[in-house]
Amino acid sequence: MDQLISSLGNATFENYVAADSGFTEMAYQMSAHVLTLGYAIMLAALLYFVLTMKTVAPKYRISSVLSVVVMVSAFLLLLVQQQNWTGAMVYDADSARYILGDGNDLFNNGYRYLNWLIDVPMLLFQILFVVTLTKSDFSSIRNGFWFSGTAMIVTGYIGQYYEVTSPTLFFVWGFISTVFFFHILYLMKKVITEGKEGAPAQAQKYLGTIWTLFLFSWMLYPGAYLMPYLFGGLEPALSETAVVARHITYTVADVSSKVIYGILLTLTAQEMSKAEGYDYEKLNDAI
Amino acid sequence: MDQLISSLGNATFENYVAADSGFTEMAYQMSAHVLTLGYAIMLAALLYFVLTMKTVAPKYRISSVLSVVVMVSAFLLLLVQQQNWTGAMVYDADSARYILGDGNDLFNNGYRYLNWLIDVPMLLFQILFVVTLTKSDFSSIRNGFWFSGTAMIVTGYIGQYYEVTSPTLFFVWGFISTVFFFHILYLMKKVITEGKEGAPAQAQKYLGTIWTLFLFSWMLYPGAYLMPYLFGGLEPALSETAVVARHITYTVADVSSKVIYGILLTLTAQEMSKAEGYDYEKLNDAI
Repeated sequence: MDQLISSLGNATFENYVAADSGFTEMAYQMSAHVLTLGYAIMLAALLYFVLTMKTVAPKYRISSVLSVVVMVSAFLLLLVQQQNWTGAMVYDADSARYILGDGNDLFNNGYRYLNWLIDVPMLLFQILFVVTLTKSDFSSIRNGFWFSGTAMIVTGYIGQYYEVTSPTLFFVWGFISTVFFFHILYLMKKVITEGKEGAPAQAQKYLGTIWTLFLFSWMLYPGAYLMPYLFGGLEPALSETAVVARHITYTVADVSSKVIYGILLTLTAQEMSKAEGYDYEKLNDAI
Repeated sequence: MDQLISSLGNATFENYVAADSGFTEMAYQMSAHVLTLGYAIMLAALLYFVLTMKTVAPKYRISSVLSVVVMVSAFLLLLVQQQNWTGAMVYDADSARYILGDGNDLFNNGYRYLNWLIDVPMLLFQILFVVTLTKSDFSSIRNGFWFSGTAMIVTGYIGQYYEVTSPTLFFVWGFISTVFFFHILYLMKKVITEGKEGAPAQAQKYLGTIWTLFLFSWMLYPGAYLMPYLFGGLEPALSETAVVARHITYTVADVSSKVIYGILLTLTAQEMSKAEGYDYEKLNDAI
């Protein structure tokens, strides 16, 4: 194992499992399929956000635009992430397993992380264009979102390079990242609480659902970060499960925090538009 | 080292580092991720500029069109630039490093340079369609932008071929390029100063921010050009850092000077449109 670590350097967990025991057909294919599902959902949802943009009043449409920005970047980065998976591994007929291909790039989750560098600020800004803040200052919340969002991702990105070679650095960077995450949770709670005041009843309900979804889906990311350790490290039988579980967790988290979140914001904005006299269903003219 | 230079010819710094010491997993992957982030942001922003085009009065929409032109060309050229990086290097299991692949294309930043041949004139013309010049002549400024912009890039493009083989030629071409750059700065300062006169207060604020952003982001390019020398040449430990730092610098510069600049021009045009009676948020119908 020590020899394996020195031969792979700061590569992620997935490569050590591939070099150590390889992946069964089932584990390799499940990963490839789940990664493909991820980027396909992003492109499909992109069309949804473009085509429903006019169901909300003009002042809310920037929320749909930001969802589109998130979908484009997530689509491209997750596509590359999937190609990185299939490009790293080759099928080895002798062992009937997928192993690292000679001279191929190693697999690295970093594509996801740098995608979040676009998505996280956009997703956090997005809700600010739908709700009306009653007490807090728009630009101070926006700057807080931007600063802590970026810091959370950059520190997590650095940490993930050490998940095998240096558990200490891995946990320290992960901890710093989590501090910024809690700051984001605190700000988001404030935004949603204030946003509910004065919103129509149905919009209030949607905002409550958004908070639950936000908590659930954003909590999945630290879970995926810690996945190698949740499953007991590099023990062969379990580590393959950890790799597949991580791909699935990231995909569920991405779809919930980007797509479902964006749809709920569209529904919220539709209710607010109606309350302000813009009822899409009753517009009969050139739209 | 001399042998390495003669064997690689006028190749860029990145290839000498790859041939000399190779790249660690972290340096190679960070470069691949940052290059991917770059083109993904361009495609995401392309959609932003298309979808927000009607938030400004018709006479300002050509600014959004020029942003779209810049996004398309930057997306394509940066995509090829990223593929050039991953296509040039291969993972070598013996040394646990990424090295030049046998028979593969070498890496060259020239894709970026030729992208700027489209982008630089477009970005400079763009602001001329938003502001109103009070003293200067529109076509003389436009021709100045076009001439110096093109000359700046072509001379820089030639210079970058000599960054390893002939430092003298590298610095001479870089110096000529910088002279044209200062002419552009002079013209831009004039455009922004005149543009502020008679603009609504909020638009004046945005124009002030655009000038700061312009200075900061365009200064990053000469910094990236000089990067191998800023980090002390081909000394192994530092040169890897210089390569990653250059990819990051170019990406930050591209996003700032193209995307954020374009968004700020859209916001400026929105303020001007409002002052002229075109208020997007109040239009409820056929938009």
